[in-house]
Amino acid sequence: MIKTPTPSYSLRVRLEIPNRPGMLGKVTSAIGKAGGDIGAIDIMGFGKGTVLRDIVVSVGDLEGGEKVIEGLKKVRGIRILSVADRTFALHHGGKIEIRNKIPLTTRDDLSMAYTPGVARVCMAIHEDPQRVYDLTIKRNTVAVVTDGSAVLGLGDIGPKAAMPVMEGKAMLFKEFGGVDAFPICLDTKDPEAIVSAVKWLSPGFGGINLEDISSPRCFEIERRLREELDIPVFHDDQHGTAVVILAGLMNALKIVGKGIEEVRIVVSGLGAAGVASIRLLLSAGAKEVIGCDRAGILYEGRKENMNPVKEELAKITNPARLQGSVSEALNGADVFIGLSQPGAIRLKDVKKMAKDPILFAMANPVPEIMPEEVGRHARIIATGR
Amino acid sequence: MIKTPTPSYSLRVRLEIPNRPGMLGKVTSAIGKAGGDIGAIDIMGFGKGTVLRDIVVSVGDLEGGEKVIEGLKKVRGIRILSVADRTFALHHGGKIEIRNKIPLTTRDDLSMAYTPGVARVCMAIHEDPQRVYDLTIKRNTVAVVTDGSAVLGLGDIGPKAAMPVMEGKAMLFKEFGGVDAFPICLDTKDPEAIVSAVKWLSPGFGGINLEDISSPRCFEIERRLREELDIPVFHDDQHGTAVVILAGLMNALKIVGKGIEEVRIVVSGLGAAGVASIRLLLSAGAKEVIGCDRAGILYEGRKENMNPVKEELAKITNPARLQGSVSEALNGADVFIGLSQPGAIRLKDVKKMAKDPILFAMANPVPEIMPEEVGRHARIIATGR
Repeated sequence: MIKTPTPSYSLRVRLEIPNRPGMLGKVTSAIGKAGGDIGAIDIMGFGKGTVLRDIVVSVGDLEGGEKVIEGLKKVRGIRILSVADRTFALHHGGKIEIRNKIPLTTRDDLSMAYTPGVARVCMAIHEDPQRVYDLTIKRNTVAVVTDGSAVLGLGDIGPKAAMPVMEGKAMLFKEFGGVDAFPICLDTKDPEAIVSAVKWLSPGFGGINLEDISSPRCFEIERRLREELDIPVFHDDQHGTAVVILAGLMNALKIVGKGIEEVRIVVSGLGAAGVASIRLLLSAGAKEVIGCDRAGILYEGRKENMNPVKEELAKITNPARLQGSVSEALNGADVFIGLSQPGAIRLKDVKKMAKDPILFAMANPVPEIMPEEVGRHARIIATGR
Repeated sequence: MIKTPTPSYSLRVRLEIPNRPGMLGKVTSAIGKAGGDIGAIDIMGFGKGTVLRDIVVSVGDLEGGEKVIEGLKKVRGIRILSVADRTFALHHGGKIEIRNKIPLTTRDDLSMAYTPGVARVCMAIHEDPQRVYDLTIKRNTVAVVTDGSAVLGLGDIGPKAAMPVMEGKAMLFKEFGGVDAFPICLDTKDPEAIVSAVKWLSPGFGGINLEDISSPRCFEIERRLREELDIPVFHDDQHGTAVVILAGLMNALKIVGKGIEEVRIVVSGLGAAGVASIRLLLSAGAKEVIGCDRAGILYEGRKENMNPVKEELAKITNPARLQGSVSEALNGADVFIGLSQPGAIRLKDVKKMAKDPILFAMANPVPEIMPEEVGRHARIIATGR
C-alpha cells in the first residue's frame, strides 16, 4: 500500500530537462506513477538546449521518496542534479532567532540601551521589582520547558532531540499569539532538579509552558511550580490538549446530534494528555468515560501498570467497571479519543462502535489509526497532522 | 557644577509654541541656559496659530533635567505638553524579541516546522546528537547568564534588575556579531546551584556567556562549567574586559612611545575584571603591575580583605612590595586602569603620575574620575561610557 503523500515528507528535486515538447509531461507522469504528489514547479535556469527545474514532490514516507527518484532515473534524457528533503532544509540552523527591537546604530543608542543609561533602568527595577514587567521582555516572554522525556509520541529522546519541537512551539506562540517564547531543554529528568531549574530561571520570564515531560512526573512538577512560582505555569500536554479536545468534541457532537452527558467516550492513553482530558470531559458533563492504557481498560481495583494518578482516575471513570482491552471498550462506544500510539486500534474496533462514531486519533506524529484506513466507517475523524 | 550632558540622560519634550518669529529662539536659548544639549527638533503638528514640536534634550543628570523644565516654564506663551525620559521609553516592553526565520502561513508549513514533519528531525538528532548543531538554533545561540550579584558597578541588585543589562548584552551579540543571545537571570546566588542550572539548560545553547557574577564566586563557577560542559564558557567581566583593556593599552602605549615591559600599571579594583586583566597584562609582558582594592595596595603578606584569588595575585604583582593607598600607588605610575567605583581617584593623584599618563577609568556606569575633571592632565583617557 502506498501511503498518502504528506508535505512532511516533501522533496525538492532539481532536474536538468531537455528543452523539447513533451519532456515535462514525461517527468510529471513518472512522478505521479511512483506515487508522488507534485507541488510547485519552478524554472531555475537554462543550459544549452536544457531547462533547469525545481519540482516539489510530496510522498508518504522515505520509501516513497526513493520510488519517485527511481522513477525519475528511468526518464531518458533528464539529469537529477539534487534531491533535498524540504523538512530538513527548513530546520537548517534552527527556526527562530533573536531580533533587536530598537536600532543600535549610533553611540547615543548604545548609551541608552546599554551602559551608562541602562543603569537607571536597572535601579528603577531594583527599587520596584514589579517594573520588570514594564521595562524588560518579561511581560511578553514564555519559557517552553522540557526534559525531552516524552517528545511527541516518540518517547524519551532527550533534551537535544527535543529542541526542534520546542523551537516549533516557540514559532506557534509568536505566529498565532504574538508571544515571544524561548526553548529551554533541560539535561535532567529528576523532578526536583527540574523544579529548581525552572524556579531559578523564572525571573526573566512572564510564564512557563511545560512540554513533553513524561507522566506521572509531569503532574508533580506542574503542581510544585504552580505553588512556588509567582508567574503562570501551563502544562501544554495536559491543559492545551484537553482544551482542544473538548472544543473539538463539542462541535463534533453537534454534528451527530448527541449530548456529552449521554455518550460513551473511550480515551486511549493515560499519560499527561489522557489524564487531563478525562478530567476536563468529566467536568464538562460527560458521564461515561473509559480510560485505557497498555494494560487495557482502567477500573477500580486494577493491579497492573498503576500509579497514584491512575488510582484516583479509576474512581471517577468507567462506572460500569468494564474490563478488557481497548477493543472491548469500543463496543458500542460513541467517541474514541486516542492519546497513545500508532496502531492502537483497528478498523474492526471502529466497526463495533455505536452509530456515527467520532474518532480523534491524536497520537503524534503517527495516529492510532490512519484516516485513509477508516474511510466512511467513521462519521468524524480528526488527527494532529 | 553642571554635569556634562549625556544621551543616557536624554529627554523628549513636547511643546506647543506660538507660531511667531523668534519663539523657537527663545525656547532653545532657555534650554541652553539651563545646561541642556539640544538634539533633534521635529514638527509634530499644528494648532490654531501654534506649532507642536518635539525637542530632544540631553542633560547631565536628573537635576539637570529638572532645570531645563524649569527654564522652559519661564518662556512666555509656550506650553509643555509632555516630558519623556528617552532611556526609559526605549526599554518599554524590553529590547529584544523572538522572530520566526521561516513562514507559518499554510498547513503545509505547519506540517514541516511542527508535527508530523518535525518528528523526523528529532529522530535524526536522537540518532546522532551532533546534528543538533545543524538542525536547531544551538549552533548560533548563546546564553547570557547572571545571578544579578555584580551588575555593572551597581552591585547585588538581583536577577530581575539585571535583566535590562543582559538584554542589552544580547543586543550587542546580535548587532555586532550576528549571534543570537538570550538573557538568563538566575534567582540563586549559590555557586553549586548556578553550575547545576547552567549545565541543565545547556543542551539548547552553543555557548555560555557568564556576566556580572560577583567575585570570587565567579572564578569557581567559570572553572567548574569549563570542566563540566562540552560548549565554550566565557566570563565577560574577566575575559571580555581583559581583552579590550590589553588592546586599548597596546595602542595607547604606541602613542606615548612606551613599551609595556617598562611601564608601571596601577589596577584599581580586584574583582573579576581586575584579576583577569592583571593576569592578561602580565602574560603580555608587563613587569610592574600594582593591584589595589578597598584595603589599598595589594602586597604579599597583606591580611586585610583577602581571599585565595588575591593571595595568588599578590605573589605575581607589586614586585617592589609597595604599601598604602591607590593614591600612593599612582606616584610615578604610567598607567591607571580603573575597574572599581566612582570617585576612586582624584585629580591630585593624576598629577603625581609619570609623564604622558594613560587613564582607563572604566567603572560603570560612573567612572573613577570624570574625563572633564582630568582635562589636559592626562595624555589619554578612556571610559566605558
